[in-house]
Amino acid sequence: MAKQKKAPRPKAETPKGFRDYFGAEVTERSEMLQKIAGVYHRYGFDALESSAVETVEALGKFLPDVDRPNEGVFAWQEADEDGKGDWMALRYDLTAPLARVYAQHRNDLPTPYRRYAMGPVWRNEKPGPGRFRQFYQCDADTVGAASVAADAEICSMLSDTLETVGIPRGDYLIRVNNRKVLNGVLEAMGLADGAEARDNVLRTIDKFDKVGENGVRELLTKGRLDASGAFIDGVGLSDAQADPVIAFLTSKAADAAGTLANLRAAVGDSVVGLQGIAELETIAELVQAQGYGPDRIEIDPSVVRGLGYYTGPVFEAELTFEIFDEKGRKRQFGSVSGGGRYDDLVKRFTGQEVPATGVSIGVDRLLAALREKGRVQSHAQGPVVVTVMDRDRMADYQAMVAELRNAGIRAEVYLGNPKNFGNQLKYADKRNSPVAIIEGGEEKANGVVQIKDLILGAKIAENATLEEWKERPSQYEVARGDLVAKVREILEGQG
Amino acid sequence: MAKQKKAPRPKAETPKGFRDYFGAEVTERSEMLQKIAGVYHRYGFDALESSAVETVEALGKFLPDVDRPNEGVFAWQEADEDGKGDWMALRYDLTAPLARVYAQHRNDLPTPYRRYAMGPVWRNEKPGPGRFRQFYQCDADTVGAASVAADAEICSMLSDTLETVGIPRGDYLIRVNNRKVLNGVLEAMGLADGAEARDNVLRTIDKFDKVGENGVRELLTKGRLDASGAFIDGVGLSDAQADPVIAFLTSKAADAAGTLANLRAAVGDSVVGLQGIAELETIAELVQAQGYGPDRIEIDPSVVRGLGYYTGPVFEAELTFEIFDEKGRKRQFGSVSGGGRYDDLVKRFTGQEVPATGVSIGVDRLLAALREKGRVQSHAQGPVVVTVMDRDRMADYQAMVAELRNAGIRAEVYLGNPKNFGNQLKYADKRNSPVAIIEGGEEKANGVVQIKDLILGAKIAENATLEEWKERPSQYEVARGDLVAKVREILEGQG
Repeated sequence: MAKQKKAPRPKAETPKGFRDYFGAEVTERSEMLQKIAGVYHRYGFDALESSAVETVEALGKFLPDVDRPNEGVFAWQEADEDGKGDWMALRYDLTAPLARVYAQHRNDLPTPYRRYAMGPVWRNEKPGPGRFRQFYQCDADTVGAASVAADAEICSMLSDTLETVGIPRGDYLIRVNNRKVLNGVLEAMGLADGAEARDNVLRTIDKFDKVGENGVRELLTKGRLDASGAFIDGVGLSDAQADPVIAFLTSKAADAAGTLANLRAAVGDSVVGLQGIAELETIAELVQAQGYGPDRIEIDPSVVRGLGYYTGPVFEAELTFEIFDEKGRKRQFGSVSGGGRYDDLVKRFTGQEVPATGVSIGVDRLLAALREKGRVQSHAQGPVVVTVMDRDRMADYQAMVAELRNAGIRAEVYLGNPKNFGNQLKYADKRNSPVAIIEGGEEKANGVVQIKDLILGAKIAENATLEEWKERPSQYEVARGDLVAKVREILEGQG
Repeated sequence: MAKQKKAPRPKAETPKGFRDYFGAEVTERSEMLQKIAGVYHRYGFDALESSAVETVEALGKFLPDVDRPNEGVFAWQEADEDGKGDWMALRYDLTAPLARVYAQHRNDLPTPYRRYAMGPVWRNEKPGPGRFRQFYQCDADTVGAASVAADAEICSMLSDTLETVGIPRGDYLIRVNNRKVLNGVLEAMGLADGAEARDNVLRTIDKFDKVGENGVRELLTKGRLDASGAFIDGVGLSDAQADPVIAFLTSKAADAAGTLANLRAAVGDSVVGLQGIAELETIAELVQAQGYGPDRIEIDPSVVRGLGYYTGPVFEAELTFEIFDEKGRKRQFGSVSGGGRYDDLVKRFTGQEVPATGVSIGVDRLLAALREKGRVQSHAQGPVVVTVMDRDRMADYQAMVAELRNAGIRAEVYLGNPKNFGNQLKYADKRNSPVAIIEGGEEKANGVVQIKDLILGAKIAENATLEEWKERPSQYEVARGDLVAKVREILEGQG
């Protein structure tokens, strides 16, 4: 005990890069995720919740030449009898656990297996502004379906999801591209086998979003002076060699037929390229058959995010409405979700190739978009606060909150030291309370209660003239028996 | 690449003591937690979601004399520049993070601060049957309220919670005791200052649930032969000294007044004891004023769980309906929730004593109870499966599922290889599908679809005679335009 007293007090601090979420921050996210789960469920996807902890072996992030696992994950060694147990880690995404789960349970799971998962993931990375080391992901994947009908389904589901959470039609666009078409372009350029040249081209394409057509052309050929004045070496292709890549990236036409024709020109007679184009055509047909026109889902070869990672179709959901950035400039809200086909998910474990396709929603970004659009049904409103005028009559006040709650109204009795009434009103203010209830000895004797409309009171205090103040009282005296009815009336008026 | 081929394949295994949750296991828990959150919200409690990771310093589980943190938590050392960073750990409950959050944000939080939290916690303990190293907790606490009105409120909230999730009134009981009364008993016995004797008595009382009145009397005095034949040393009190403890534990009378009178006799003139009794009396009055009678919340000094840990009122929610245990014997379902007052939550951080009271619900146990009572609205039903008879007409099948989904019906198209139709029906079976849709070339030409009622089909296959089979067809041919209406009719008939 004496020892403890000497020890310095621990610091009350969130670990670096982590944060706490309060009240509406929690409930708004949870409500959004519930709505998303509802759509996924309707599409036949089943929930999966794997544990936060995986063996490093299963996660596959263990570097063979170092004692400690990869810095990107939070990992530790289990202490067994010899003090040297397995390495464990927190999952860094929801896809690696899906691979482990599918390989482990594949005999019990249906094939194809449609599953969704939502929950936190952890990254042991340098935190930055708005970048945390724990954040939510929300994924849906179909494992074991080779047909691009599975990709088309993900796209229409994504469209339904965005509308269900509150993004109106016209404010988003799901854009679809295909890695196979790009492979066809590379084949047409004679780069099918040159791994290094291919990788260079892929890396360059990845910058299309930032540097645009001319930038990509420069980077593919002679190099480019970037905005900071630094010179970036080019890949060293000729202008003629760069042409098919540029043709691919800029092939989007007024309609799908036009785009597909442009792509055919870019891939020449490459078999894989033509197969990729046929896949895009099928996806366009399938979503169209379900009523999803190009105002919701469109073929757009300028989507490059993930082209290096995925093996077939890739998709991206973009919110097209405009917001003001930190510097006050208008820009499109941008991407909130992306995904695609990756066909070697389970191979690490079983040696067997299993086709898979899926999508991941950026939970925090989508939530930010909904807040931007005023589309979150905020639970931020505080409770009705029943104040305590006479601490011996706590039972009376508790009876009032019970009545209010039974009527479905959020309500609480003030539980701090009731001596200073001003503190009670300050508390109500801090709680964003819409209404305060007051029942002192005089009210009790007369069978009435005082009801303060705190929202109206605040408005009047801010703006009103003395005349208005008198005309629009924000405090009402009602019979005790009318408490619930009057509170409901005030809340409805505030709504 | 060549190197990778040589490496052994990773094992696809959940880490020891962890498990995966599938489908209804996930959604049923999530629905129950949503309902609980709704009650907590109505009581004025605000959601809090702290991160899974805390510094070991803040968690307070670091043993000063060893290099590694306590075995009970999963912990690791951050790698900073020198390779020796802070120790981090996964939270082992939701109370320690609350203490840290309150100490860190106390200037911004209202006082009293009512918060609820739900989520996984992690224990680095030996797993056992049904005991996992990651499990859910669901807590509500009020920080900064010294009044037992806060404890009374937790009890009535717990009662509302149980009824809201589906435990009928009469099938549960919330029992309330008070550590201060026990302190009074110890004072009356002259053990107020003898820390060792007190601890011995507390430890003995903790076994009351298991060994009963006689067992406790033996353990307090001369010792006891336990069921296995081993002799457990007694505390060495005289029979007269043991009397007040037994009187305390068995003081429950027909009504609260009787129980309180018995307790008064047990504590004599101990000030803290009488204070504890007054608190129990106030709690009984307060919950009664809100309409919660002793059929829901009762004073019961035989509640001993947590008496060693808490500093004032303690509560426990017990489910009183009977179930059969593994050996086929009837027994009460038992405790699903417990809590109480603990007044030094924040002191470690700030040096300042802050009163707090709260409750924790055993999420998995409550969910098991609801399943036992058939009270979970299971989402286990599979989707309607649209089979693929002609792979070139995938767009037709996708249009069907889109129609069904738009009507709110869970539906999917078969996305595996459609070649073998038997596999499609096997898949529908594995998915618990209620209905399968079939549209071959002939049906297409005639403008009809076949609809199989798979639930009825399975029943008939099991039980029916040939006559019944003929009379009660489980497959219907309807016009394509009547697809949704007929599927809905079948689903409603199954419901």
